[in-house]
Amino acid sequence: MPLSTLLVIVLGGSAGALIFAVGLSRWVLARGTGTPEMRVISDAIQEGAEAYLRRQNKTIALLAVLVAAALAIGYGLLRQSMPGDPVSDRTMLAFYITLSFLLGALSSGVAGYMGMWVSIRTNIRVAAAATSSLNAALQTALRGGAVSGLFTVAMSLLGVGGLFAVLSTFAPAGMDPSVWVQKIPFVIVGYGFGASFVALFAQLGGGIYTKAADVGADLVGKVEAGIPEDDPRNPAVIADLVGDNVGDCAGRGADLFESIAAENIGAMILGVVLYQAFGVAGILFPLVVGAAGIMASIVGIMSVRTNETEDPMRALNRGFYLTTALVSVAIFFICKTLLVTPDAPGAWLYFFFCAMVGVATSVAFVFITQYYTEYRYRPVQTIADASKTGPATNIIMGISVGLESTVMPVITIAIALVSSFMLGRASGIMVDGEAAGGLFGTAVATMGMLGSAGYILAMDVFGPITDNAGGIVEMSQQPPEVREKTDRLDSVGNTTKALTKGYAIGSAALAAFLLFSAYLDEVRNYTGEVLHVDLSKPQVFVGGLLGAMLVFWFSSLAIRAVSAAAQSVITEVRRQFREKPGIMLGTDKPDYGACVDIVTKGALRAMVLPGALVVIFPVVVGVLFRQLGGPGERLGAEAVAAFLMVATITGILMAGFMNNGGGAWDNAKKFIETGAHGGKKSDAHKAAVVGDTVGDPFKDTAGPSLHVLIKLLSTITLVLAPLFI
Amino acid sequence: MPLSTLLVIVLGGSAGALIFAVGLSRWVLARGTGTPEMRVISDAIQEGAEAYLRRQNKTIALLAVLVAAALAIGYGLLRQSMPGDPVSDRTMLAFYITLSFLLGALSSGVAGYMGMWVSIRTNIRVAAAATSSLNAALQTALRGGAVSGLFTVAMSLLGVGGLFAVLSTFAPAGMDPSVWVQKIPFVIVGYGFGASFVALFAQLGGGIYTKAADVGADLVGKVEAGIPEDDPRNPAVIADLVGDNVGDCAGRGADLFESIAAENIGAMILGVVLYQAFGVAGILFPLVVGAAGIMASIVGIMSVRTNETEDPMRALNRGFYLTTALVSVAIFFICKTLLVTPDAPGAWLYFFFCAMVGVATSVAFVFITQYYTEYRYRPVQTIADASKTGPATNIIMGISVGLESTVMPVITIAIALVSSFMLGRASGIMVDGEAAGGLFGTAVATMGMLGSAGYILAMDVFGPITDNAGGIVEMSQQPPEVREKTDRLDSVGNTTKALTKGYAIGSAALAAFLLFSAYLDEVRNYTGEVLHVDLSKPQVFVGGLLGAMLVFWFSSLAIRAVSAAAQSVITEVRRQFREKPGIMLGTDKPDYGACVDIVTKGALRAMVLPGALVVIFPVVVGVLFRQLGGPGERLGAEAVAAFLMVATITGILMAGFMNNGGGAWDNAKKFIETGAHGGKKSDAHKAAVVGDTVGDPFKDTAGPSLHVLIKLLSTITLVLAPLFI
Repeated sequence: MPLSTLLVIVLGGSAGALIFAVGLSRWVLARGTGTPEMRVISDAIQEGAEAYLRRQNKTIALLAVLVAAALAIGYGLLRQSMPGDPVSDRTMLAFYITLSFLLGALSSGVAGYMGMWVSIRTNIRVAAAATSSLNAALQTALRGGAVSGLFTVAMSLLGVGGLFAVLSTFAPAGMDPSVWVQKIPFVIVGYGFGASFVALFAQLGGGIYTKAADVGADLVGKVEAGIPEDDPRNPAVIADLVGDNVGDCAGRGADLFESIAAENIGAMILGVVLYQAFGVAGILFPLVVGAAGIMASIVGIMSVRTNETEDPMRALNRGFYLTTALVSVAIFFICKTLLVTPDAPGAWLYFFFCAMVGVATSVAFVFITQYYTEYRYRPVQTIADASKTGPATNIIMGISVGLESTVMPVITIAIALVSSFMLGRASGIMVDGEAAGGLFGTAVATMGMLGSAGYILAMDVFGPITDNAGGIVEMSQQPPEVREKTDRLDSVGNTTKALTKGYAIGSAALAAFLLFSAYLDEVRNYTGEVLHVDLSKPQVFVGGLLGAMLVFWFSSLAIRAVSAAAQSVITEVRRQFREKPGIMLGTDKPDYGACVDIVTKGALRAMVLPGALVVIFPVVVGVLFRQLGGPGERLGAEAVAAFLMVATITGILMAGFMNNGGGAWDNAKKFIETGAHGGKKSDAHKAAVVGDTVGDPFKDTAGPSLHVLIKLLSTITLVLAPLFI
Repeated sequence: MPLSTLLVIVLGGSAGALIFAVGLSRWVLARGTGTPEMRVISDAIQEGAEAYLRRQNKTIALLAVLVAAALAIGYGLLRQSMPGDPVSDRTMLAFYITLSFLLGALSSGVAGYMGMWVSIRTNIRVAAAATSSLNAALQTALRGGAVSGLFTVAMSLLGVGGLFAVLSTFAPAGMDPSVWVQKIPFVIVGYGFGASFVALFAQLGGGIYTKAADVGADLVGKVEAGIPEDDPRNPAVIADLVGDNVGDCAGRGADLFESIAAENIGAMILGVVLYQAFGVAGILFPLVVGAAGIMASIVGIMSVRTNETEDPMRALNRGFYLTTALVSVAIFFICKTLLVTPDAPGAWLYFFFCAMVGVATSVAFVFITQYYTEYRYRPVQTIADASKTGPATNIIMGISVGLESTVMPVITIAIALVSSFMLGRASGIMVDGEAAGGLFGTAVATMGMLGSAGYILAMDVFGPITDNAGGIVEMSQQPPEVREKTDRLDSVGNTTKALTKGYAIGSAALAAFLLFSAYLDEVRNYTGEVLHVDLSKPQVFVGGLLGAMLVFWFSSLAIRAVSAAAQSVITEVRRQFREKPGIMLGTDKPDYGACVDIVTKGALRAMVLPGALVVIFPVVVGVLFRQLGGPGERLGAEAVAAFLMVATITGILMAGFMNNGGGAWDNAKKFIETGAHGGKKSDAHKAAVVGDTVGDPFKDTAGPSLHVLIKLLSTITLVLAPLFI
């Protein structure tokens, strides 16, 4: 299939999805906006969220410009051209890399902003819809989430595909276009770096904001003042609701945006390796699968409907399975059409099976995450049970469950990685006389897993939307039957948020190898030698040790940032209660804005150090070890590779521990609130509230930020590889 | 220096230290045993500890016999002889390996038993001495601890040195003795495996026992019934005191015993590599340093004295510095005498500097651990501060501190490992034309660090002895000034226990490389090829991922075991309080024995699964990946190496997190008890008690067991290497 046809499919598909998302957002915005009381609250949330995101984006933009300047100066002025450079003119190379970094950063920021923009407008419409029927509320919430999900996935495809399309028309003078298309993926790696750079700060800042507000509001409201969650007398309650939007929507949007961008670029680099076999079709294969996936997600989303009595999770699951089935069928035909080579006529079928391994992995992760975080199953119940003997045993058991929850996912990933590698290797694709399809097999599996990303992300944003809708219903004092509806959706939203995190870390783990390979290809491209990452060299081992340590250090800083920002919320709320006793009596209005302002400042201040650490540390390691090694030893490149790989392993485990542990604590509390072990207000419930609070920064700040950290390490080492050689 | 002289130094030194330890124990046993009330309590502790250890040893013996049988059958009957075998007759090889496994297991068990035997007799004598002077109590406690410390280190040297001496007289027919001495270290690897096998179960079982009793006693006593710690009305109080002995004394004794044994054997294998340069002196170098270290430790221990007003920690620190200085001087002369070769006359000085790197690392770890666990410094104070807003923020901050506390140790280890490797490589030692001293440099650094092991272990056992002495003083209702003395020693004991854990994990990290190298040498010995551990192969990466996951899984099981066993204690204590209301009034005696019995059963039952997991999992990984790889690919051996290395990295970090986090929580509580943030009974104190309880299984069960896990993985892969090739 010629390049132009492939690009039309990719760009046409993603543009179509964007248009559909715009249409969907008009459908959502046309829903009713409920009572004036609801609108007051929704407006306050909207105002706070937009103000925060404006300030956060200003800070991130400043940091991004700094990095862009460093890239431009480093590549354009300081560094000598090297024979392996994809573009021989160093000014042009600096221009391409800096531009794609800035484009990636900008797109990631826009994806996050869009996610929030829609969700803060959908929440009130879900609240209003809940006054009529559950199905109306469910569809409004999911379609609101879908706007964000489709937008993110489509933007990512459009960005990478568009850059590829534009660059493909700019072959440097004297270079054959067929050679040039093999170099483009290396030129646009900056896009992935820019996207993950912004995503790290967005996820980290948003994560700190949301949990500082949540922990602060809970501790001073529920525990000290004894008022229920989302009570309008709590001055931090608006900040808490704002947090759901800036953390879960904007943060996760940027996270999945960069995942898709980075993983597509990594897979395209692996496609370059197989250029002899598949030509440009191998390079664009990941984007074509992505375009098909987004179409399947649209069908899946629009198919979801429920009735008043059904568990809404079942409806969402049906949509997921439909999406998965459609993606599988589409991949079958894509493999059969694109992955054809006369030398290995049966290879496409092997790669189709690789993709099925990826699809199966996504389903397995959905099941495993549900097992560890829903209260129907043993893990959450043991935590609830341990709450009977107080907060200490609740915490001990929660940590134990969180640690254990990494076992099944790791085994799943191990099987998926080894089997897709072996299937790919057995496909019969040879390069230079050696079986070469193994790594491409893991890339295809990743694409299979990411095929349903649009649907998954829609389900994810569904979570904060319903959470907010519940808050609006509670604060505007709607009748109990309305609250009962939003509570049911909110509980489903908790599950879908946990699922997305499981899915995100699973795809990050599966994709990890693809990004390592891209780095190794880049190093080989420069040195002409295959780089082995030999842990039995002490310096390389130390590189790995430092990588694992970075994950611990970063987690420590992220958790502490929440604690510090929460302290300032607590102090502020206490001050308001003290100075305006009328608040508790309902005669005086709390100053919501002051709390929003304090959390905003705290989150922005706190996100800089851990974020900078992740960017600077691998560079220091690489440059230092390059100095320590002899000439031609490539010790810098090798130590950085070990750093990256062991950090990825540790990051996968730590993120799984934190996400699932936090989710399990949350639902153990919810289980007790259903009446188990004495129900609300019992000692077991008090203990479970402690566990829930501890889990908050785990599951919504440190855990999700680790997903991005893993990929940021990959993209930063990929872009800066020439520094370490 | 001829072999016989070297062996005389090693065996003479360790036998001398043993005799000294016997003399010291007679000195301790000759101290006064206080009042009859004290003796009643001490007898109960003694009885419970001995009963537990008898049953534990029976269980472990059964497991060890099973493994020995598997080794004997596997090596002697199932496996074909291979060209690389150190002994060509497979029956003889099976005999040697099984015998050294059993000897190692037996010695490890005896070392643990001895530690406990002395400590349960010293505790009452410290309590009695505290009625006269602080110095008398300090010296009694330290010398009691020293009996155990010296005994452990000397036994370890005697075991490895004795096996070497005996085997050196049994050169197989037709083999040159100079070839045979190079094979002996490979024949006795079973000794290290046996020692670490027993140590894992001893540390795990003892750790579960001590913390189940502690957590159970605290939750039901302090929290529910509102009675102070060590109150005689608490039926679990004797079990708690027994726990200090079986966990901290017996467990840590077995832990350090196997560390020294395994690391000596690993270093001897590296000495074999340099046989061309140093002959047999290079092989026995580690044991000679060990013999000098134990002498230096004796001098250090006997030098410690204090007065009534001094902080006893200062006195202990003086002894540590004296030991360190003496070790350094001794190593200088040992290097100058043994590490001489005409080809590189200056090499010994480089190796001396390597040893100094090790000594400096031990001092650095002592400082870092103090910084993170003493309440004079920021970390513990931030936890105490966070307690003001309740248990949730206390836990969040404690986890953050624990995670952060891994940063400095990892940087220290990174510097130590790289610098000792580079110093060793620069020494000028060449084998087959290549610089070959690098790995031996890391081994020498490890020996430098382990030189003070005798003193460190004496300080460690000092901890549970003074803890018990405090308990005896409290329960026998001595006057407050006596209690004040034992409280001061107990607080110092908490610090020394934390220090030992830092030291143990630091030396494990430094030694890790030495044990990996031994494994790689063993593989090369069989295959004739150098094994690279290339993480960029997907299967090898998966091996590493599974290794890291094992650490998480094991930690989860260890923590949960404590929780489960603690639950049964709580149930039993509640039953006693309910059925005998006279206990709380002081008119009825609680049934201490029932609690001791319940914890014993719980701990023994709970230790089997995590222990078995550690033994079986690496074998499964190795065998499975050998099947997955092609012939000659060595995929099994390579995946197991990655498994081992990444598990070691993750284990070092996780153990540091758990040890320091737990220690910091403990001391944050103690800081509040000094009157800060409202002092005892304040809300901050209640929150800090929750943190302390959560930290208990971290710092005394999972953390220390991870030290052993790391080394058990090394020794098991070393012994079973032929299975994976």
